[in-house]
Amino acid sequence: MGRKKIQIARIMDERNRHVTFTKRKFGLMKKAYELSVLCDCEIALIIFNSTNKLFQYASTDMDKVLLKYTEYNEPHESRTNSDIVDVSERTPHTHTHTHTHTHTHTHTHTHTHTHTQNS
Amino acid sequence: MGRKKIQIARIMDERNRHVTFTKRKFGLMKKAYELSVLCDCEIALIIFNSTNKLFQYASTDMDKVLLKYTEYNEPHESRTNSDIVDVSERTPHTHTHTHTHTHTHTHTHTHTHTHTQNS
Repeated sequence: MGRKKIQIARIMDERNRHVTFTKRKFGLMKKAYELSVLCDCEIALIIFNSTNKLFQYASTDMDKVLLKYTEYNEPHESRTNSDIVDVSERTPHTHTHTHTHTHTHTHTHTHTHTHTQNS
Repeated sequence: MGRKKIQIARIMDERNRHVTFTKRKFGLMKKAYELSVLCDCEIALIIFNSTNKLFQYASTDMDKVLLKYTEYNEPHESRTNSDIVDVSERTPHTHTHTHTHTHTHTHTHTHTHTHTQNS
């Protein structure tokens, strides 16, 4: 991590991309875990790889966090890649700016997960 | 990041906890952004702090990712804090073990976000 400055662009070599994905995915989940414990917060992380395979992390219960998210109606910090790029290239004080959009939506969903024990 | 080995436990000093939250939250979002670009994947990150304030990051569109999540029915890597602790304390080969649970659920939700521009 940060040993060598790498350029942030899609890794062309597929094997390298896959190795990096596995390593960084775990690094990201570990950082999320640390933040949730250190700062006593709830975190949900959903990742779909380039072939749309799902990987998820939740500090507690994913569905609980998602439900809380859907029921949350106040303005809040909402970032996308473009913000992060901005922030990375701009001065620290912009780190906490709130991104802006308005939307309303409704959807219903049902899903079943059946996971196999192999730990 | 990793300059000094810190113990992963709730930070008691409130001011310190808040500073750490802000710093690590941004660090986490940045790592998520990097992973999404480097490995061409879609990422959604939802954080509720200790006072239930929401902070979110999505590489593309949060609702798109969440919808994709709810429509996903195959077994997949699903971690919680307990796994990460295990993994951190165990040998690398366990990094990719799949956690297991089965559940079915349905819920409907509507929500409106109104964000204020202050960038």
